[in-house]
Amino acid sequence: MAPMLTRFSAAPDGPWRVTALRPVRGNDLPAPPALRIDAPGTGWTLEGVASNLRYTTADERVGLQARQAPLGRPDARCAALIPIRKSTAWWALAQDERRAIYVRAGHHPIGLEYLPAIARKLYHARDLGGPFDFLTWFEFAAADEPAFDALLARLRATVEWDYVEREVEIRLTR
Amino acid sequence: MAPMLTRFSAAPDGPWRVTALRPVRGNDLPAPPALRIDAPGTGWTLEGVASNLRYTTADERVGLQARQAPLGRPDARCAALIPIRKSTAWWALAQDERRAIYVRAGHHPIGLEYLPAIARKLYHARDLGGPFDFLTWFEFAAADEPAFDALLARLRATVEWDYVEREVEIRLTR
Repeated sequence: MAPMLTRFSAAPDGPWRVTALRPVRGNDLPAPPALRIDAPGTGWTLEGVASNLRYTTADERVGLQARQAPLGRPDARCAALIPIRKSTAWWALAQDERRAIYVRAGHHPIGLEYLPAIARKLYHARDLGGPFDFLTWFEFAAADEPAFDALLARLRATVEWDYVEREVEIRLTR
Repeated sequence: MAPMLTRFSAAPDGPWRVTALRPVRGNDLPAPPALRIDAPGTGWTLEGVASNLRYTTADERVGLQARQAPLGRPDARCAALIPIRKSTAWWALAQDERRAIYVRAGHHPIGLEYLPAIARKLYHARDLGGPFDFLTWFEFAAADEPAFDALLARLRATVEWDYVEREVEIRLTR
């Protein structure tokens, strides 16, 4: 049950084809034709670990577990990889201060509204020393892409995103 | 202000001489003659990152900052490196559940009592995938060694230590 390291690698081909890549905030990444997960690529590689919960409470987890869907659903042929780096100001905050912003932003209830349509897995990267602090992987059916767009727009409009200094959005299909 | 990786390496000689090494819980580590910090060694190497606060609140941090002493004080010629791994049960808890145990254990107030005599720096290692979750480095004057012994005994008697499944205690002098 140690944290599992996952690698997302830019590649000329692979199970997930990149349909769009855009910088939301800060520097871009080169757009590859495809992405490979835990298989060698030919360009950049981003690494993260599925680790312990950092802000979610036990009660909130009960709500998530009741609604969330697993990755790999046959009809979930759309995906997104969103690497994010937060600011020095964010990381200098104490635990209760970061949690308070997460709550004020409505991060948990907003995410909950889009379950089970949008499946999600969070990878922590900050302690690994890479260019991003988190990598979030989303999977959803093509019909749910407008809902996914709305989820992103709502989160990005929150006070928590004042602390995001780099964000890249990579859309994929398989 | 990215997390700084620090390496502690077993070595035949170095600035810190190992005076004792004992397993407190779980498997031992081979006892080297000395320890080097951020310099190549000849045996095991433990890595950790000084990262963001995980349980400490803003109020608690004010208390710590008012009392804590820096590393490297000329009279602090004794040190200890204590690598710890917590159990799967600990890491499966939600954030509020882990914080509640930390509070119930009195972890923060116990540590505070031994400041400024015992200087301390915490390195996180779990996301790096090594054999330990934390490495804590302590520095103190020889006259404060009994106080340090008391600090360890008190922490190890708390409910939080029910979740410690491996702990090695390495004592050093320079």
